[in-house]
Amino acid sequence: MSNPVLVEVTRGALVESRHRGAVAVADADGATVLAIGDVATPVFPRSAIKALQALPLVEQGAADRYGFGDEELALACASHSGEPRHVADVERMLARAGLDPSALRCGVHYPISQAAAAALARTGAPSALHNNCSGKHAGFLCLACATGIDHGEYFRPDHPVQRQVRALLEDFTGAVLGEDRCAIDGCSVPTWAAPLENLARGFAKFGTGHGLAPVRAKAAARLRQACANKPWHVAGTGRFCTEIMQQFGARVFVKTGAEGVYCGALPEQGFGIAIKCDDGAGRAAQAIMAVIIARFLPLSDAERAALERFVHPTLRNWNGFEIGALRVTAITLRGGEK
Amino acid sequence: MSNPVLVEVTRGALVESRHRGAVAVADADGATVLAIGDVATPVFPRSAIKALQALPLVEQGAADRYGFGDEELALACASHSGEPRHVADVERMLARAGLDPSALRCGVHYPISQAAAAALARTGAPSALHNNCSGKHAGFLCLACATGIDHGEYFRPDHPVQRQVRALLEDFTGAVLGEDRCAIDGCSVPTWAAPLENLARGFAKFGTGHGLAPVRAKAAARLRQACANKPWHVAGTGRFCTEIMQQFGARVFVKTGAEGVYCGALPEQGFGIAIKCDDGAGRAAQAIMAVIIARFLPLSDAERAALERFVHPTLRNWNGFEIGALRVTAITLRGGEK
Repeated sequence: MSNPVLVEVTRGALVESRHRGAVAVADADGATVLAIGDVATPVFPRSAIKALQALPLVEQGAADRYGFGDEELALACASHSGEPRHVADVERMLARAGLDPSALRCGVHYPISQAAAAALARTGAPSALHNNCSGKHAGFLCLACATGIDHGEYFRPDHPVQRQVRALLEDFTGAVLGEDRCAIDGCSVPTWAAPLENLARGFAKFGTGHGLAPVRAKAAARLRQACANKPWHVAGTGRFCTEIMQQFGARVFVKTGAEGVYCGALPEQGFGIAIKCDDGAGRAAQAIMAVIIARFLPLSDAERAALERFVHPTLRNWNGFEIGALRVTAITLRGGEK
Repeated sequence: MSNPVLVEVTRGALVESRHRGAVAVADADGATVLAIGDVATPVFPRSAIKALQALPLVEQGAADRYGFGDEELALACASHSGEPRHVADVERMLARAGLDPSALRCGVHYPISQAAAAALARTGAPSALHNNCSGKHAGFLCLACATGIDHGEYFRPDHPVQRQVRALLEDFTGAVLGEDRCAIDGCSVPTWAAPLENLARGFAKFGTGHGLAPVRAKAAARLRQACANKPWHVAGTGRFCTEIMQQFGARVFVKTGAEGVYCGALPEQGFGIAIKCDDGAGRAAQAIMAVIIARFLPLSDAERAALERFVHPTLRNWNGFEIGALRVTAITLRGGEK
C-alpha cells in the first residue's frame, strides 16, 4: 500500500513534512464520488463515528426517556474539549439516569482545551468527566439504564450496548465487522475497522437517511440537527468541527477521530466523506476535510472566504511569526482552483 | 521522493498508522555506515542541533566568563520540559550576564511537562523561561553579552550570533547553507536545512572531535560531557533524551527536534546519526533512534533489557490498557534480531 502525498507542510520556501493518505466520498448507494488512495483496506474510524455510536440512544427511546435535548445529543456525538459547560452537561446526562461520574469507564485526562486545563489545575484535578469521550460514554450508560441492561461493563465488546453498536455499524457501512477487525479505542470501547469507501457510504446514509429503516433515519436526522444546533457541544471553543458546523449548520456534518481520521456528510449533496492520513496526523486530515467541503459544497463568496483559513492554513510560531503553511495537494478545488 | 515505511503503529491485530522516513549513520569523514531512504535532500534539523548552536558560547569563552558548569551548558543544548529547576537555572544563566527574562525572544508556551504545567497554572502563568528553548536562547544572549555584541535582535538571521552559528553548521556538516536553506524555527531563530548524510557526519565530528579545530573539538567534548553529566537538564523527567543519556552516559549523545527529527552520536564507535520522519512524527523518530542505538552500540544484557521499552514501545490508553505498539521495520538489529 502506498497512498499519495495529500498534504505538504512548508517552512519558509521548503517542504518540511509530508502526509500521505486516502479519501473516499460516496453516496448512500455506495457509488463513488471521489476515491484517492487505498479506500478498500479497513481502517479504525476511532472517534469519527461517535454520531453512529450514539444512534441506539435515540432509536431505543432512552434520549426521550431522560428528556435529552440538542445539547445532550451533541455531547453523545462529541470529542469535547473538557470546558466547564461540557463537563457540567455530561454530569447532568448521567444524573438523569440516576448515575454519577464514577460509572464512567473512559479513563481520565486533562481537558483538550488548554485554557480549561489551566483553570482546572488551579482548583482541582481532572476526572473522567473531562475525558473528551465522556459524552459518548454517558450516552452508552444512559442507553443501558433506560433499557434495563446492567451497565457495569458497558465498554466491553461483548456487552449488549457494544453489540448493538457493532450491528448498527455493519448496517451503515455494509462491512462485515468480525473479531479480526476489532481493537480497543483510547477510551476503552471497541473500535471496528472498516474501509474508507464503506465509511463514506455509511455517512451518506447518516446524512440522508437513504437506505435506513425509518426509525433509524429519524434518529440520524435528530442527531444531525442536534449537532447543527449545538456545534460547540460536539468539540469546543476554536475547534474545527465546531467552527465548520457553526458556519454551515445542517449543510455539513464533520467529526474528527484520532490517528488522522475525519468523517462527514454533505446531506444536501447526498455525499458521505471518510479520510485517513496514513501517519495519524490530525492537522492533515482536517485540511483535507476543508478542501473536500470547498470542492463539493456550493459556497457563497463570503462562505468561501470564511473557509479559506482551513483550506490554506498558515503555521505560526510561539511569537506569532508566520513560518509556514499546510497545502493540500492531489485534490483539485472546483473549477481547477488549487 | 518516496521514503520507506520505517515504523508501523499497531492497534490490536492491525496496523493503524505508518511512518515513513530516512536515516543516515556516518563517520566523521563522511563515510556511510547506514543509509535508508533519501539522505541527500535537505531537511530542517530544528532543535536536534542545539548542541552545535551552543558551541560558540563555549569556544569564545563566554561560558567560562560567566562561570557556567554542566547544568548551564546542558541547558544551552536543551529542549527542556519547563520544570521548576530548568526555569530557575535558565534565569540564573541570564543573571550572570546581567540580563533578566525580558531579554528572551523565544516566545511563551506552557511547560512540556504536564505536571509542571499544572503546578504553574496554580500559581501563575508561563513566561519565556518555560519555553523549551529558553536555555538555548540564554546561551545566545550570554554569547552576545560576553563578546560585546548588542543582544537586542540576537534571533535574526543576520545577527552576528546567528551568523556564527551558520558558519559553524557549515563547518560541521560540510553543507553550503545558503539563504534558500533558511527558515524560521518555532522559537524564532533561523533553522538551516541540510541533508541527513551531512547532519550525520556533523554529529560524528561532534562526538569525536575528528576533523575539527582544536578549540572546537575541546568545546564539543565539554558540551558532550555536560549533557552526559546532567541529562535531566537536556530534556526532563521521563523524557527519552534524558533517560538514554542517564543510562549510557558519555557513550551516547541524543537530541530530539520538532517535526520528526533526531540527531545523535556514538562517540566510541565514531558514528553520527540523523533521522527524519517524513510526516514529522516524534514518536516514530524516537523509536528509530532506540533501534539504531541497539544496533550499533555494544550492550550488556542488562542494558539491552533496559532499552527494550524504547525499542519495542507499547501503547496504552487512558485506562492503562495495552492497545497497540510501535514497531520499527526496515532496520535489522544486530544478529538479525528484529
